[in-house]
Amino acid sequence: MSIKIALLGFGTVASGVPFLLKENNEKIVQAAHSEIEITKVLVKDIAEKERLVAAGNHFNFVTTIDEILNDKEVSIVVELMGRIEPAKNFITRALEAGKHVVTANKDLLAVHGAELLEIANKNKVALYYEAAVAGGIPILRTLVNSLASDKITRILGVVNGTSNFMLTKMLEEGWSYEAALSEAQQLGFAESDPTNDVDGIDAAYKMTILSQFAFGMTVKFEDVAHQGIRKITPEDVTVAQQLGYVVKLVGSIEETKSGLAAEVTPTFLPKSHPLASVNGVMNAVFVESIGIGESMYYGPGAGQKPTATSVVADIIRIVRRINERTVGKAFNEFQRERVLAKPEDVKSSYYFSILTPDSKGQVLRLAEIFNTEDVSLQQILQQGTDGNTAHVVIITHAVNKTQLENVTRKLQATSGFKLLNTFKVLGE
Amino acid sequence: MSIKIALLGFGTVASGVPFLLKENNEKIVQAAHSEIEITKVLVKDIAEKERLVAAGNHFNFVTTIDEILNDKEVSIVVELMGRIEPAKNFITRALEAGKHVVTANKDLLAVHGAELLEIANKNKVALYYEAAVAGGIPILRTLVNSLASDKITRILGVVNGTSNFMLTKMLEEGWSYEAALSEAQQLGFAESDPTNDVDGIDAAYKMTILSQFAFGMTVKFEDVAHQGIRKITPEDVTVAQQLGYVVKLVGSIEETKSGLAAEVTPTFLPKSHPLASVNGVMNAVFVESIGIGESMYYGPGAGQKPTATSVVADIIRIVRRINERTVGKAFNEFQRERVLAKPEDVKSSYYFSILTPDSKGQVLRLAEIFNTEDVSLQQILQQGTDGNTAHVVIITHAVNKTQLENVTRKLQATSGFKLLNTFKVLGE
Repeated sequence: MSIKIALLGFGTVASGVPFLLKENNEKIVQAAHSEIEITKVLVKDIAEKERLVAAGNHFNFVTTIDEILNDKEVSIVVELMGRIEPAKNFITRALEAGKHVVTANKDLLAVHGAELLEIANKNKVALYYEAAVAGGIPILRTLVNSLASDKITRILGVVNGTSNFMLTKMLEEGWSYEAALSEAQQLGFAESDPTNDVDGIDAAYKMTILSQFAFGMTVKFEDVAHQGIRKITPEDVTVAQQLGYVVKLVGSIEETKSGLAAEVTPTFLPKSHPLASVNGVMNAVFVESIGIGESMYYGPGAGQKPTATSVVADIIRIVRRINERTVGKAFNEFQRERVLAKPEDVKSSYYFSILTPDSKGQVLRLAEIFNTEDVSLQQILQQGTDGNTAHVVIITHAVNKTQLENVTRKLQATSGFKLLNTFKVLGE
Repeated sequence: MSIKIALLGFGTVASGVPFLLKENNEKIVQAAHSEIEITKVLVKDIAEKERLVAAGNHFNFVTTIDEILNDKEVSIVVELMGRIEPAKNFITRALEAGKHVVTANKDLLAVHGAELLEIANKNKVALYYEAAVAGGIPILRTLVNSLASDKITRILGVVNGTSNFMLTKMLEEGWSYEAALSEAQQLGFAESDPTNDVDGIDAAYKMTILSQFAFGMTVKFEDVAHQGIRKITPEDVTVAQQLGYVVKLVGSIEETKSGLAAEVTPTFLPKSHPLASVNGVMNAVFVESIGIGESMYYGPGAGQKPTATSVVADIIRIVRRINERTVGKAFNEFQRERVLAKPEDVKSSYYFSILTPDSKGQVLRLAEIFNTEDVSLQQILQQGTDGNTAHVVIITHAVNKTQLENVTRKLQATSGFKLLNTFKVLGE
């Protein structure tokens, strides 16, 4: 028996799906216990259909979603159009029509995931989305299956390929942020409006999804504080290196005694940390847990074939479960009440980069500000001066978010001081 | 309803199982859809039982396997005794008694896996062994589930923690092999007879298991050529560093056009390769495939809690499937005929470390040997001399196994030359 699927959209990732189904047919059929056949592909309009056919694509292209929803033979709908609408509407209707859905749509899942999962649950169909986090890295299913036995205490992820590519160029070639962005755009890694990538929004979306799988909590996008890489200067990168660190945009989720804390922020990672050697467009998710201890899952975060591999893995899983008559269980069943951490329980070391007047006693004034807030200092570096201004770099011992906020506010309020950057430092 | 399990053995790893079941109870029950209860624990004799009870362990300790096999309430037998016998006998009888089995016994699986899997299959029970390869890294289930959609072309694994710890010490602290071994023994990473670890036998066992999951082929232990780390000298480590490499004991399985080639051998890895930063007792499996491209799975290769985490993940999977009434499917269903590669299709660059007489024309003589076998050279380094003997290091371009054998034989047969070491070089 063959299981029939339909694709919504036929862009880059979507065309990787038939590639894998064909190229890896023998193994896929062994795993799925069925042939898998793409019987319909939704495209935007007749013009797109004609263009695709002219380019040699031999699929049954349709231009309305109803042709798929009304087709009783289609068991699985694979949404690869991206963006919120009409994807959300199409997925909702597919689930309501009793079709299983596979999607790679991270933005949609991060913002409307809970709603869609409820619709899937009500209709007893599957909604799988392995490709939505770190494209080619099989992290979600691994958390569900292999780490079911483990209790995760912290997740650290380098999960945005564009910003990681840029930071790698800034580190290895000494490029400025602007030069790195322009190269990323030229290579097609960054869009003309790079906001989602460079401001940490994309990574924050992924943290909301990861928090469900790793901690069983449906954290909202608004719960994930995000600071991007726009403000990172070549000087920050150089200082980090001098002190034995590399700078990465790291998404983190940790369980403190009062609840969960999730954020995305530039982070100094010790050079020996496994995440520190994740370079270019590669992604990795580093997991700290009471059982395994430390584990890391590394691979490409995007791209046609990696993403299609995760999509097809989801399809295989559903087909297998259709054949076993166990289909319709939630992708992730781990559920706990959402409880966010109190600011005083979220602790880390921090890097401060500060301009001060180049006159006597300034470092003392600085030190007093930190001291008043009970923040002890790990390292102070006076980075050179132009006669008028001195550049002081401070790495603190662990401080909590309340202390961090107080110190930041005081530094900003002190006349003559200019706080250039504050980044997280991993290590303590 | 609660599912009852029995443990065979109560050593270090085994005692990690109740720890996780208790510490992570809420999540485990959500994932398994049942409580999991350890109702019997097999120990060697009354003396061991009394010792364990005196130490505060409150389990129902039994001293004969029959007490478990005849107990109709026990659904899952968890073998954590290690070694071949009596583990093999106990597992066989448990499977024949209709019990599902979870084991971490890599030696047993590598040598008698096919036989045991057949018994499991005949009795329609599950035999799972995630912990048998790279302890805490969830690599086997990930290959089965998430990489079902992908076609793997090569696996590279740093899968022996003991030898990796030793090589890390040799690299980072300049230690000799002997000093590193003695430290590993003192820390309990290496046994008093370290043969299995340092001669690549343990890693070869893991390659035989990985070959089934990654390539669907049941490769025999004898098919995996293995060379260990005994002969690696501080000089080899230093030269590697000078040339931009690190030396690791790497297990590899690759599919060539004629079939599968598996081996374990010291390997020069470019410093930028993700495996190069896998240090100490940590393990990692690097996967090259047509879909994802490159991915890596990193974590502890051994240890109580990491291994127990994999064991409990297997238990959860079985309990879930018992509840779904789909239990008894093979852990790995990917099966192809075993076809081994022809030597001429297995290609790599190699490092040769050679002592030659310190006289004119020796490098020319050397070069001629390589040239006769059509082996082109990437780098030659004359490493210093004591007046009588010169030390020459050569890195070749890609050569096949036949060429490698011919060059090696000629170098060994040439009077005055002494071939110290030949290692694989990754990169080309």
